[in-house]
Amino acid sequence: MAEMDELEAARKILSVNEKHARDNGRLLAEHGVFCLNLVSSPGSGKTTILTRTIEQTRGCVRAGVIEGDIATDIDAERIRATAVPVVQINTHGACHLSAAQVGEALEKLPLDELDAVFIENVGNLVCPAAFELGEAAKVAILSVAEGHDKVAKYPAVFARAKVLLINKIDLLGPAVDFDVGFVRRSASRLNRSIQTFVVSAKTGEGVDRWCRWIEERVKESKAG
Amino acid sequence: MAEMDELEAARKILSVNEKHARDNGRLLAEHGVFCLNLVSSPGSGKTTILTRTIEQTRGCVRAGVIEGDIATDIDAERIRATAVPVVQINTHGACHLSAAQVGEALEKLPLDELDAVFIENVGNLVCPAAFELGEAAKVAILSVAEGHDKVAKYPAVFARAKVLLINKIDLLGPAVDFDVGFVRRSASRLNRSIQTFVVSAKTGEGVDRWCRWIEERVKESKAG
Repeated sequence: MAEMDELEAARKILSVNEKHARDNGRLLAEHGVFCLNLVSSPGSGKTTILTRTIEQTRGCVRAGVIEGDIATDIDAERIRATAVPVVQINTHGACHLSAAQVGEALEKLPLDELDAVFIENVGNLVCPAAFELGEAAKVAILSVAEGHDKVAKYPAVFARAKVLLINKIDLLGPAVDFDVGFVRRSASRLNRSIQTFVVSAKTGEGVDRWCRWIEERVKESKAG
Repeated sequence: MAEMDELEAARKILSVNEKHARDNGRLLAEHGVFCLNLVSSPGSGKTTILTRTIEQTRGCVRAGVIEGDIATDIDAERIRATAVPVVQINTHGACHLSAAQVGEALEKLPLDELDAVFIENVGNLVCPAAFELGEAAKVAILSVAEGHDKVAKYPAVFARAKVLLINKIDLLGPAVDFDVGFVRRSASRLNRSIQTFVVSAKTGEGVDRWCRWIEERVKESKAG
């Protein structure tokens, strides 16, 4: 297969995806629902951040969740324990969620009764960056155990995210050498408007500010 | 674009890749060079494992390295410090190495003077599993900070690997809840022949057994 054919195929896939993403964005706007797309490596703590965020914003933010996984519904089960509506998407091998899949999932959520939808993408720091889902913002998550060179090495997701969550700061110490300031500066150089929160989803440290940020965005979405 | 067109495009890309992978495998066999393809999430410790392995097998194994990265040559610089030959591949956004890229890199390595080539794939627990590079074996690496549900959630790479390295065991303790036995059992259920080594590339714990395994495979390749 010629290289141009491959490029053309990729271009068409992205263009179809963008059409679905626009449809999703329109549907969410009609319902005044704020939507975040959480992107990170496997094991950086997306699900723990979600359960913590749902608990801490309960009463202010009526949340729904779309869980993307290659296989299993382990994460969806963890979300279900928080008693918010959750829809599982299994990609069966695919490395990212598509806007069409998210569109089908949105139809299964009670959007009229929600203020925010959190989409947990497949754990992958590369491919999800290229696929818009109709979200208001991408949230990139980096755990301190992954090392502070990751913004430079995997730039696309950090360039396109509105928020960077540096997670697992409870692990900082002699065993984990991670320079939070360096990551903040790398991310800001790449993406001047990125907003960084430094948190431990496990202990709750720093999560308050991140939850306030969501509550403000939800108010703006309602005001429309 | 119809779904069948997408599938057909994907099938062609994989089939072209497999042809290049067979060429690479043939070239490596002609030179009696043992080749490993290291696959993991970003930040699981691939490069630290490589530098530690190169140091501990020096004298027994003349190693060369192919470094795959989306952007930067941060990892290649770390390998260069060990004074073994290293070739950098930048994928410029692509989420995995292709066999064609590895074929070009192999031409730049002095294969006549090497016993083993280590390929460090792009940090991604999903896509590299689908692309053979001509290696003798895939090595899946999972850091304990990533959580012990990852074999079930990202099965393809663990199903196709001959070796699983569970890394960063120096982080085990109250802050990192990771069940090593559970991961061993999950991996064995998925892939009966997978061989698991439990290591800390940072402290060196457990690395000896892994290095012995490489040295035995190198001897077999030479006898080949």
